[in-house]
Amino acid sequence: MNERALIRAIQRYTASPRRDDDLIAGIGDDCAIVRPRRGEDLLFTTDFVIEDVHFRRAQETGVVTGYRALARGLSDIAAMGGEPRYALISLALAPWACQSYVRDLYRGFAKLTDRFGVRIIGGDVTRTGKLTIDVVVIGAVPRGKALRRNGARAGDRIYVSGALGGTAASGYKTRPEPRVELGWQLRGKATACMDLSDGLALDLHRLCMESGVSAALTSPLPVARRATREQALSGGEDYELLCTIPPRRKPPAGLIAIGLVIAGDPGRVTLDGVPLEPKGWDPL
Amino acid sequence: MNERALIRAIQRYTASPRRDDDLIAGIGDDCAIVRPRRGEDLLFTTDFVIEDVHFRRAQETGVVTGYRALARGLSDIAAMGGEPRYALISLALAPWACQSYVRDLYRGFAKLTDRFGVRIIGGDVTRTGKLTIDVVVIGAVPRGKALRRNGARAGDRIYVSGALGGTAASGYKTRPEPRVELGWQLRGKATACMDLSDGLALDLHRLCMESGVSAALTSPLPVARRATREQALSGGEDYELLCTIPPRRKPPAGLIAIGLVIAGDPGRVTLDGVPLEPKGWDPL
Repeated sequence: MNERALIRAIQRYTASPRRDDDLIAGIGDDCAIVRPRRGEDLLFTTDFVIEDVHFRRAQETGVVTGYRALARGLSDIAAMGGEPRYALISLALAPWACQSYVRDLYRGFAKLTDRFGVRIIGGDVTRTGKLTIDVVVIGAVPRGKALRRNGARAGDRIYVSGALGGTAASGYKTRPEPRVELGWQLRGKATACMDLSDGLALDLHRLCMESGVSAALTSPLPVARRATREQALSGGEDYELLCTIPPRRKPPAGLIAIGLVIAGDPGRVTLDGVPLEPKGWDPL
Repeated sequence: MNERALIRAIQRYTASPRRDDDLIAGIGDDCAIVRPRRGEDLLFTTDFVIEDVHFRRAQETGVVTGYRALARGLSDIAAMGGEPRYALISLALAPWACQSYVRDLYRGFAKLTDRFGVRIIGGDVTRTGKLTIDVVVIGAVPRGKALRRNGARAGDRIYVSGALGGTAASGYKTRPEPRVELGWQLRGKATACMDLSDGLALDLHRLCMESGVSAALTSPLPVARRATREQALSGGEDYELLCTIPPRRKPPAGLIAIGLVIAGDPGRVTLDGVPLEPKGWDPL
């Protein structure tokens, strides 16, 4: 399999410019070219997905691996209240990765690109020992409206967008949906927002660090069916949104209140008064 | 080495927003946020650099590896006539990669970010078996002015920006400089442009394919000191610019004429009338 043959195989999944398009050039030149729209800020996120670190080949189809790789990036865009627009997907193929496996990966990407109107406009292709995917997602948000991690204030209520721990309980076999539409509804409402990729205990600690506040959670937490409390707190990859909203603002439907932002040591999180260790998925 | 310790170690190399800045948020949130300037198109390029594929650890310092990894992306921006602005740099660290090695990589990146005013605004950090770097560079170009590969027309002259094969002749130990300023001078002059990353024979073939033309090169080609003709044609990683300019336009200083665009089979390249095989670096 040479580079040209592979590029041909994946070309049907990649975007070409249309008439009156923001996309001026997709794959095939030295760079992709995009024309920004007026009154928007752009969002950039990048994530590795690597064999034997983030997934095991024997336990997962290419379709699922592709889906999960792109879901992480889309979830980051959702967490900022953004609209995902473009993706650059780079593949370093392991010796075992044949053309049909690569096609499966792209079918996994396509489940999300079709759903959210995201277009694949670039990437790199090479080889290595362990299959390595790097996904960059480019999103857009009305100017100045991006949701940040650093705006939580004492008195804000803390919410999550769904039950937690389900991904870990399934052995990371589920395909969580990035909460893109919910992110839009949180613009102008949430004082801080992020996605739960590494588990509530670690991610809420991070949000509180950035905002310079503490958090007091109260039971019961929304634990997914079959999940343990530990999985809900530290399992990771649920891709629900975690956000803080002042009590005077009405939260969008579907949010579950889990506690309160309070003044205190930055990053300190308690559950029913007991400190929670900031423990979760650490990739190093 | 955990993720936080590593992020602290590299934080001095990453960008923070300033007052009245295009950069609204750098590293530390779910996404970086950039405010596009009016009247500009944005350019995106991404490249892997992987141990034992693109470099060997025993033969190269971290500083050189970092420099070369970023140089590839900057050269892609130069080839479009763009101004490089931002980079997202993702690292998957091999077990042997200690903190001082990572610092060396960043010192290599810094040689180019300082020189070209590029700011590192994001990335991912994880681990794997072989050191893997993915570099995304984001550039900008006045609206509609990006140099493409597909505009060469019969009668245009073909130029390169310097002697070729030097990188291969040095055992890939030189540090070629991305031709960013030259790219700016080519805006409105060149009908097609690309950078020579995989060697003249393969890259000119690609340019001719995209433009639907043939190319007739004539000796002597500008071969770097100590390089062979083979290295000049297929050595790769010279990062000189290859471009086509109509005869009525004056080429910028420093360009070397090497031949003529002619009507003919798309992608066909001859040297003194003899067909050149489109051979060069193929990463698969």
